[in-house]
Formats: sequence, C-alpha cells, structure tokens
Amino acid sequence: MSSWVEWFAEQRAGREDAGLQRALRPRAADEDVIDLANNDYLGLSLHPAVRRAAADAALCWGAGAGASRLVTGTTSLHVDLERELAEFTGREAALVFSTGYQANLSAVTALADKQSLIVSDAHVHASLIDAARLTRAAIEVVPHNDVAAVRKALAAAGDRRALVLTESVFSVLGDAAPLPDLAEVCADHDALLVVDEAHGLGVVGDGGRGALHGTSEHPNVVMTATLSKSLGAMGGAVLGSAALVDHLVNRARPFIFDTGLAPAPTAAALTALRCLRRQPALPLRIHQRGAELADRLGVRRSAGAVLSVPMPSPQVAVAAQAAALEAGVRVGCFRPPSVPDGVSRLRVTARAGLADARWEHAVEALARVVKDHRRWP
Amino acid sequence: MSSWVEWFAEQRAGREDAGLQRALRPRAADEDVIDLANNDYLGLSLHPAVRRAAADAALCWGAGAGASRLVTGTTSLHVDLERELAEFTGREAALVFSTGYQANLSAVTALADKQSLIVSDAHVHASLIDAARLTRAAIEVVPHNDVAAVRKALAAAGDRRALVLTESVFSVLGDAAPLPDLAEVCADHDALLVVDEAHGLGVVGDGGRGALHGTSEHPNVVMTATLSKSLGAMGGAVLGSAALVDHLVNRARPFIFDTGLAPAPTAAALTALRCLRRQPALPLRIHQRGAELADRLGVRRSAGAVLSVPMPSPQVAVAAQAAALEAGVRVGCFRPPSVPDGVSRLRVTARAGLADARWEHAVEALARVVKDHRRWP
Repeated sequence: MSSWVEWFAEQRAGREDAGLQRALRPRAADEDVIDLANNDYLGLSLHPAVRRAAADAALCWGAGAGASRLVTGTTSLHVDLERELAEFTGREAALVFSTGYQANLSAVTALADKQSLIVSDAHVHASLIDAARLTRAAIEVVPHNDVAAVRKALAAAGDRRALVLTESVFSVLGDAAPLPDLAEVCADHDALLVVDEAHGLGVVGDGGRGALHGTSEHPNVVMTATLSKSLGAMGGAVLGSAALVDHLVNRARPFIFDTGLAPAPTAAALTALRCLRRQPALPLRIHQRGAELADRLGVRRSAGAVLSVPMPSPQVAVAAQAAALEAGVRVGCFRPPSVPDGVSRLRVTARAGLADARWEHAVEALARVVKDHRRWP
Repeated sequence: MSSWVEWFAEQRAGREDAGLQRALRPRAADEDVIDLANNDYLGLSLHPAVRRAAADAALCWGAGAGASRLVTGTTSLHVDLERELAEFTGREAALVFSTGYQANLSAVTALADKQSLIVSDAHVHASLIDAARLTRAAIEVVPHNDVAAVRKALAAAGDRRALVLTESVFSVLGDAAPLPDLAEVCADHDALLVVDEAHGLGVVGDGGRGALHGTSEHPNVVMTATLSKSLGAMGGAVLGSAALVDHLVNRARPFIFDTGLAPAPTAAALTALRCLRRQPALPLRIHQRGAELADRLGVRRSAGAVLSVPMPSPQVAVAAQAAALEAGVRVGCFRPPSVPDGVSRLRVTARAGLADARWEHAVEALARVVKDHRRWP
C-alpha cells in the first residue's frame, strides 16, 4: 500500500476543513452567462477578426510551432508580433513566450543568480515569486507599494546586481504601482526594474500602451506582459532593449526548453493588437465601467479592469459567487492561497467588450448580491 | 549610464568567444525545406482534420481561454481532452496545462517540498531540473539510467517523502529509461516515480500509448507529457490517479496562476489523439525510419524518434547544420548548455508524417553531410 494515497487524502481533508477545496467547473460554448470572471477585458478573444486570424493561422501553419523557438519553432508570425508589440509599447524589442508565467520565469532567472539581490513587492504574481526562488538570489520581500522600503533594500545591495519586481496593475486588488518613483530609485541604485504589465497592457496608458509607455529612455526598465488578457489569446512577452532580448534568447531556460507559442494564438494576439491600435478609445470604456461598478458596489475604484470586493470569509465569498451565477453573472472568487493579503474576495472585471444591456444587467445583479452577502454572517 | 548595458555586452562576448551565441531564425509558411528538426513526429500538426479542429475551436470558442482553468478557463474541450488522454494511456485521470514545462513544474512542486528528497536522473529535461530546484527539496542527481544509484539514494531517504525523476525517452540522446526497474525500486521505497513521456507518448508503447502503458496498477507512478510533439499542438499534461489530479488542481501554482490552454491547441490535441487511435500502426513508421537513418549515419538507433549525431565541436556542428540546410534539410544543432553530456551534436527526428520521396531525399542528403563533417577538423 502506497503512503501517497493516504497523503493525498490527508491533504484534501485539510483543504476541506479550511473551506479551501476547489474543483474545476467546465463551461460550454453556448452557455448564457455574463462572464465578469475572465480577463478578456476588451472582448478581443471573441472579436470576429481575431477568431478568424487564429483559424487562418491554424489552417496555414498547422496546429503547433513544432519545436523550441530556437530550433524551428520561430515563424514569421512570431517575428511580426514581436515587432508590433515593441512598437506599440515603445520598447526597442520584444520576445514572445508560450505563457506569461514562462515570460516572468525567463526574465528573472536570466537576469539574476545566486549572487544577486531581488527586491520583490509583497503582492507580485506567483510567477514572479517562483522566478525569484528559482534564481537562488537573496530575496527581500518589501511591503506593498512601499518605495522607501525598496530604496532601503537597494542601499544594502553592495556590489550585487539587483532586480526590483513589481506589477503595473496588481491582478487581485486592482491597484497600481508607483512606477515613476520606483524607476527613479532603481536608476539611482543601478537596479533593474521588472514590471509585469499583465493587467496594464491594453488597459492603462495612452491607447492601452501600458503604464510604462513613455519610459523607454530608462535602460533599467524591463516590461513583461501576457497575451492572454486584454489581447484575448494566450502567451506572454518580455519587452526592453535588443540586448535584453538577445540575452533571453540565449539564456532563459523556460524560453529555450519550451515549444514555441502555437500559430493560432500568435496570430490572434497580433490581430488583437492591431484591433486595439485602430480603437485607441476602447480601454477608456474599461475605466468608465469599472468606476460605475465600484461606486454601485461601494468598493474602491480600480487602477485597471479588476474590482476587488472583500468578503467576510471564504465561505461567504463562495456563497456570493454562487448567488451571482444564479443571477446570470460569473465572477471570480479568490481565497487563500490565491490572495496576497489573506482576505477572501470576489474579483470582478470591468469588460469593455460586453453589450450595454448585458453590462447593465450585470451591475444590477452584482449590486444585489454584494448587498446581501456583506451583511452576514 | 547603466551597468546592465555593459553586462549584457560582456555576456554576449563570452558566448561569442565560446562559439555558443545563438539567434532566432524565423521560417516562412511556404518554405520548401524538409524539417527533421521539429518534434511533430507523426505529422499531426499538419493533418487536415487537426488543423480544421483548431480553426473551428477558435471560431466557436474564441482565441483564448480567458482566465485560469480554476476561474473560468476550463471549457468542455479541456474536459474531453483530459478524459481521452487518460483513457488512451490507461491512467485514471489527466490534467492539461498550457505547456509541458508548466506540467513538469506543477507535478514536482505540488508533490515535494523542502522536507522531501528528489532523486533526479542526470539527463532529465530543464523543466524537471527547474521544478526540483523550486521545491527546495534535497536533490540527488544520479548517473544517467543508473538504477543501483537510485536505489542507494532512496535507501538514505529516511522518512522523507521521495520523488524519482526520469523520462521514458530522453529528448536529446533518444535513449530509454529502465522504467520497470525504476518502478520496482520506487515501490520498494514508497517513492513516487515521475516519468516525462514528452518523447514517448505517440511514439512508444502499444499504438503510441507511451512507455508506461500497462503500469497503471502502480499507484506510485506519475506520468507527464506534452501535447506539442507527437500530438502536434501545444501544451502539457500530468496523468495518474484522480487524487493526484485533484491535488494538482488545488496546489500546483503553475496551474492555478496561469491562463488555460487556448481552445485551438486544445481541440487540435484532442483531434490528433483521435487520429492516432484510428491509426495505431503510425508510430511504427517512426521506428522503421529511425532505424534506417541511424544505420545510414552510423549512429546508435533511438528508442524513440530522436537520433543523436555527435559532432567534434560546437563549430563543426553548426557547419554541418548549415550544410544540411543547404541541401534542403533542417536538423537541430544542440550545443552546451542544451546537451546533458557537454557533447555538441545534430539532433534529427524520424518523422512518420513525411512523404516517402522527401524522406529518402533527406536520408541521402544527411548521409553526405554527416560523412563530410565527422572527418574534420
């Protein structure tokens, strides 16, 4: 008898006791739910031109890239996407990865090693945390958005190469990092500022160019991003100098030892980016809707598309999520360990792509659900 | 002035001095090259039904999954693929990831922690190495395919939970692991055997069911796989008991914090799997062609689809690769740090999907190139 069978059962019982057991809930293609849980902020995943581009790429190129980008998995689609992403965000160069997770792992592990210092905001994404651990660098976790703490940590770096990790818009709370101040502190200490724009690209900055747009004169800023949120596809990217990209191509293990992003999502992201360029006002709609919803729910307005609605307990959060679904609206429910501060919450995205009537229905339904669930227990 | 600019330049100069600088070489959709560098062993990436399934999924479901699998990124496509993968390989359950890299990171990090012991074959893939590092477990790297060394390492595990990491068919040398012996040693010591079937699924075992097929009675065996090689799409999978999958859904950070695999590659992998089930003799063609090519090149036959052709130096390997391309055949060129043994080599895949005339042309061309390049310097 394997002790592992017992161990899995014990682990699950522990999760159940804590109210943290989770299961996958598949959705059908034709479900009639207003989805405010997903990150398709601009609705581009469902844009006819984006779907068509994905379909055409699969028909033309085949279903997969076939190999690592360094072997034979780089198609002209990847090159086009990288050039246009760099142009759009105002960086010199870009490199596309098969996931945002692997983009973050790659950027951090290729830039730091066990002789380095990594100063990490307390709220950064799991992929940046794992990336920092993988480097075996000394890691200093600083309080959320605390520039003075970053300055203090960097002052102790000595002659170690130092990285500072943050996000432009944080994925669960929806607040923004003080990027100009962080860039200044990093420049003062010759540290590299790595900014994950997963929730910033397509959402903030001029026409959705991200929070870093206009900072390309800073050689010490590295941008990472995903192609799976506002661009509606899948994959990730790292953007910065051509020397940075050359370095990653040669040194980033999660890039080198991974099959390239498949043609369909590559073409989809490229077409979504072009749609965004043609509709520079589209991201504004996220902010209008987000402000309206925040005010109705009585929660803090978001810097991006993500509204955070704190709940009194994991159990109430789950009940509120179920009530919203009953009313035809899917929202996210984040509980430990997926929350940076231990507070269970609903996570609601202000989606620009929804038709007005559906959006208004969702706002009314959520206002009722949140009112009902914040009162108890 | 940033010291990072200087550092990137120094790093590049070091690579150039060592003959290890690499660059991406994009390919066009209409290039007329016989590609023996990619891992599309069965040609399923280009199968009309697979392309059509990818295209239809993008049109029906949109370009992306929209969110984490745990939030709203699980579609009925994922569920179908997981069920059929599990049935095909004879495991109880499967979980699909957006890359094989993330599948390996997930399996290992969710099963081991800093109190664990990880015994790792010296030749395992970078993703398993990175996964082991991430756990902070004690890591014992044992000589390649050395069962006695694994037994000795496990005997010293004490009451630590122990994992043994290996691959069924190794990705660069193309040799096979002694799985029955390893499974026995693991069962004796109650260790978990994690086997990466990236190059085994669709290639070895009954009808391409993988090297582990028929071992489902062992509760201590975990299988990982990719969807980007013989299945021609992208993504990865972990297969084993339902309790294992439930554990991963709840605990594997690279699963929880990643957007789900996009609809197009999910549907493509599913259709490729169905094509493989309908053509159980297809994997045999890989072995016939592989044996023919190995004999012509005078190298060891492969356990799978990958032929390893050792070269006298990184520079000669690059020259041979260029000569092959000149003759219309693309092959892989693996140099440090992408080789487990420090030996630069060509990596050639025996692809079942190629038409006979193209395959024969490739064999003749490679025989000439290898003869010319193994003679010098």
